[in-house]
Amino acid sequence: MASQTPIQSQLESSNEKYASTFTKGHLALPPAKKYAVVTCMDARIDPAAAYGIELGDAHIIRNAGGNAQDALRSLVISEQLLGTEEILLVKHTGCGMLTFDNATAAGLVRQNLGDAGVKELARFAGDFQTFADLEAAVRSDVEFLKGSPLIPETVAISGWIYAVETGKVRKVV
Amino acid sequence: MASQTPIQSQLESSNEKYASTFTKGHLALPPAKKYAVVTCMDARIDPAAAYGIELGDAHIIRNAGGNAQDALRSLVISEQLLGTEEILLVKHTGCGMLTFDNATAAGLVRQNLGDAGVKELARFAGDFQTFADLEAAVRSDVEFLKGSPLIPETVAISGWIYAVETGKVRKVV
Repeated sequence: MASQTPIQSQLESSNEKYASTFTKGHLALPPAKKYAVVTCMDARIDPAAAYGIELGDAHIIRNAGGNAQDALRSLVISEQLLGTEEILLVKHTGCGMLTFDNATAAGLVRQNLGDAGVKELARFAGDFQTFADLEAAVRSDVEFLKGSPLIPETVAISGWIYAVETGKVRKVV
Repeated sequence: MASQTPIQSQLESSNEKYASTFTKGHLALPPAKKYAVVTCMDARIDPAAAYGIELGDAHIIRNAGGNAQDALRSLVISEQLLGTEEILLVKHTGCGMLTFDNATAAGLVRQNLGDAGVKELARFAGDFQTFADLEAAVRSDVEFLKGSPLIPETVAISGWIYAVETGKVRKVV
């Protein structure tokens, strides 16, 4: 086993405290409130607190940008296997995906990881899923999900923007 | 705009309370502690609380199973664009991905969504990324990341299991 890093030690000591007062071991596998949230991996977002999600209530899918296509496998499992019936997609202000484009990202990979890295980008079709307009990206991801043959028409889908500067969320669509 | 669902109304009312006492609007985009966590979308996991992650400290990537391949695009962005240097991959007991296999999932899609749905599974190569052995899955995902030309060798990568019954996390590798 590799030697312990400070981050790993912190995980262990924090978790020890968490587990010592943990009382939710009885929760069922399927989300109690039957919904799924797709949002960004951004460090400034705490979806449980900011979006009011109690433990056991909802699937929370997070990736760079709160990207719907990236979340598709998880959403199909959420709905077909675990009974969720609603999707909330939440992107946010100040997102990293607004600050660079595919060419910039691919250039950094070439510079830092060489041709072997660039070749491996094929795993996600070389598409970092960046976007230039936040509200348009929310709308287009909601449209993608509404149009997907993998998401039943009965699933309610809404799109939101969370402001990392104020902690406020607003509905876009 | 579509009519409001109860879940959407709950998001709005919960968020109003959250934003009313929000004091973290100054946080920077790059994660302060320079690490990324990959974990499952499971409703019974609150990574911030259970893994001791303060707001602003780490990227949190979540998908069905805490799957490393699915997280690859996000991890490349996390490291190449936003400066993270360590990955913690945390799968968990009682994971839905242990309870079914690809054939079962594809069968449900065919039954509920028809041939159009089945065809669309090509978007993730028809691979739901299920697994039969939890600890082996942690090890194999860590190996995948360690072997990936997209993850620099300097990145520390560890693998963990969170027990939803007790709230306890333990290191696997």
